[in-house]
Amino acid sequence: MSIEISKEFIEKIQLLVENQENKTILESLNDEHHADIAEVLDVLNLEEATYIIKLLDSEKTSEILMELDEDIREKVLENLSAKEIAEEVSEMETDDAADMIAELSEERQERVINAIQNEDLAADIKELMTYEENSAGSLMAKELVKVYATWTVAGCLRKIRAQAKNVSRVHSIYVVDKQEKLIGRLSLKDLITAKSEEKIADIYISNVDSVHVNDDDEEVAKVMAKYDLEAIPVVDDYNTLLGRITIDDIVDVLKEEADKDYQLAAGITQEVEADDSIWELTRARLPWLILGLFGGLGSVFIMEGYEEIMANPKFAKLFFFTPLIAAMAGNVGVQSSAIIVQGLANDNVKGSLFNRLLKEVGLSLINGFVLGILVVIAGFFMKMEVNFSLTIAISMMSVIIVAALIGTFVPIILNKRGIDPAIATGPFITTSNDIFGIFLFFFIAKLMLGF
Amino acid sequence: MSIEISKEFIEKIQLLVENQENKTILESLNDEHHADIAEVLDVLNLEEATYIIKLLDSEKTSEILMELDEDIREKVLENLSAKEIAEEVSEMETDDAADMIAELSEERQERVINAIQNEDLAADIKELMTYEENSAGSLMAKELVKVYATWTVAGCLRKIRAQAKNVSRVHSIYVVDKQEKLIGRLSLKDLITAKSEEKIADIYISNVDSVHVNDDDEEVAKVMAKYDLEAIPVVDDYNTLLGRITIDDIVDVLKEEADKDYQLAAGITQEVEADDSIWELTRARLPWLILGLFGGLGSVFIMEGYEEIMANPKFAKLFFFTPLIAAMAGNVGVQSSAIIVQGLANDNVKGSLFNRLLKEVGLSLINGFVLGILVVIAGFFMKMEVNFSLTIAISMMSVIIVAALIGTFVPIILNKRGIDPAIATGPFITTSNDIFGIFLFFFIAKLMLGF
Repeated sequence: MSIEISKEFIEKIQLLVENQENKTILESLNDEHHADIAEVLDVLNLEEATYIIKLLDSEKTSEILMELDEDIREKVLENLSAKEIAEEVSEMETDDAADMIAELSEERQERVINAIQNEDLAADIKELMTYEENSAGSLMAKELVKVYATWTVAGCLRKIRAQAKNVSRVHSIYVVDKQEKLIGRLSLKDLITAKSEEKIADIYISNVDSVHVNDDDEEVAKVMAKYDLEAIPVVDDYNTLLGRITIDDIVDVLKEEADKDYQLAAGITQEVEADDSIWELTRARLPWLILGLFGGLGSVFIMEGYEEIMANPKFAKLFFFTPLIAAMAGNVGVQSSAIIVQGLANDNVKGSLFNRLLKEVGLSLINGFVLGILVVIAGFFMKMEVNFSLTIAISMMSVIIVAALIGTFVPIILNKRGIDPAIATGPFITTSNDIFGIFLFFFIAKLMLGF
Repeated sequence: MSIEISKEFIEKIQLLVENQENKTILESLNDEHHADIAEVLDVLNLEEATYIIKLLDSEKTSEILMELDEDIREKVLENLSAKEIAEEVSEMETDDAADMIAELSEERQERVINAIQNEDLAADIKELMTYEENSAGSLMAKELVKVYATWTVAGCLRKIRAQAKNVSRVHSIYVVDKQEKLIGRLSLKDLITAKSEEKIADIYISNVDSVHVNDDDEEVAKVMAKYDLEAIPVVDDYNTLLGRITIDDIVDVLKEEADKDYQLAAGITQEVEADDSIWELTRARLPWLILGLFGGLGSVFIMEGYEEIMANPKFAKLFFFTPLIAAMAGNVGVQSSAIIVQGLANDNVKGSLFNRLLKEVGLSLINGFVLGILVVIAGFFMKMEVNFSLTIAISMMSVIIVAALIGTFVPIILNKRGIDPAIATGPFITTSNDIFGIFLFFFIAKLMLGF
């Protein structure tokens, strides 16, 4: 199947909107998936997008709104009244509803919630909005299928038919006791393959994974990925069943986390996309460049200390090698830190720190040795004195070892202190390794060449 | 809930294995999730792990095996006979079975498949093993619940009870015609909320997404993420239903893809983990460092062309700024390429190339201007001549613009030629930008300072 929206289709829709051919618009969009319609609206202008949102029925538009690009959704929502938004929200799952309302201004939030006709729904949304960002509570939905252990299979199926209408996908049926405490689960499959007179208490599976409403969303993602769960119930301190989190939300969490780490490694501090404005991109990129600038000025400062050797042609060539040394220090540091950051994320940085230190030193010695030999060979072709190319090779090896150790241990230390180790990748490690590298390079060269 | 395995638990298991207290081992592990047992086995030695695998029943061990670290699984499988592996495989879903058999040597593959007692299963696994790696076929499982449009709801439920036993999770029920062609779908919920005498033909949803068996797995991941699907049917050229892909496999694809891009950006060429051997880590890291070395030697070559200005103290200081210039070129290049690579992955690099060029130039001008002012200010404190610090500032701005353009367009061009743009991040872009940067820096300085 193709997931591309054709340019012709978009132009056709634009023309139809211009001519207000409502019937044809509805016909054209009715068979399209809401995610596709959202993509069409993303490229239309605001008036056109709003026109279509107001034209389609709220069952469809509620799903489209959730798929829209955040910036565009914000603008479309500004064009809708509190009552219209309340109608959209009433068609959504509670987690999506709470997320969308949270994007509005505080004053509008209240008006929208007050305009929701179903009071239970309004209460659910209010509850969801109280949970902290990046907590299990902020991810969960209130919709779930819940049965009491005392029910029979037949009674259960009857009740489920009613409950399931509000739940788009039934992953698991949660079994609770009289106090609404989670005691087990059942799959729909178990239920339809059981005899109708059996009691739930006799057939449910008591071994049920759950997360606490205040758990971190990344922790929830790890649990669900590890145990291959498609939904997980959320409970409070008393094990009361509060809601459930589904795998599609976790896919989003994993993707965001991966994107964030990737951007940090590349020196981009906040979530930006290729299509964001120049100002947003500048805000995300400039701070790291300024860090790099100060790092570079630090290197200038170090080299100024060796200014006098420039007059001596025997030593002056050392300055030609500073970008090479800085690049090696940077590359090695980023490699080491990236492996550690990924290892920490996947929980496979185990064993003692001393063993890890030995390993990094060993690895750097091998890499440094191979690269050092290459430098000596290159030096031969570049007609450098052996003494001089050996100096470059040996100081480069030392720089590689130190860079690897910095790249390895800075993220580990940050992680131990509860700081996201991903910030220690990219420009941060490159810049500090540049300075250390240049310092060490001249220091060792001075010892070896004796200036 | 906690997903940590305690050290005490592992030591207890080790002691039990040593004393061959089989009953206690079974009791201790019976209530544990297979993913947790796999984690325990990952840290035990090979004999201990094999002992436990042979002790537990194959229903449990088949799941444990799939969760084991690949290196450890390989070794454990070497200790099992073809017949024992066949028994494990028979308990797995077909996609997992095919994946695990594919890890064996070719000669063992055949023996294991021949040892599978269920001939249909053996045929399914053989079929799955014919699909290319990273294709939809390689991800799909043969297990699914399939009904014919001519059946009634009641008949359907009867048949499903039988089929569902082999399917661990029923996401969708696929509706086929007499030729086994996919014509629609039904949810289990739809089925239990329908009247038992209704015909499937009257209640099924004909709008069903599917992927072709030869589609790329990343494409499948995009489709499933976009349309929030938890399972998708896989068809051949004639729309014959061949299997289904579930969201848990897609989570793995997304994770692998993100990890790979991250590692490429960090200059690590193959999938390695923090706990891999020094040799594996060297193989993954050294090639990029060699690339960096040659880049650095390229800079040496460029600077040698300006050797004579070292004698002039007015110009010699330029050499102090080469690491700064190289760092700026590298950082800007990585930022630009990372944003583009992510944008390409998320399909949001749209619009004309010319507009993108304008945007990158605009962005670089802003960043370069701010950084240039900082350089002039720093120059004031470092007692540089204004003329000199202006030269540094302006050449740095030019370097930033060129670096941003290279970082933006190299991945776009690679992508257009069908090459993974992610290889253009990290050391590749840093190294080429280092050389361009140094070249441009001296070229502009020469023009401005007139040497």
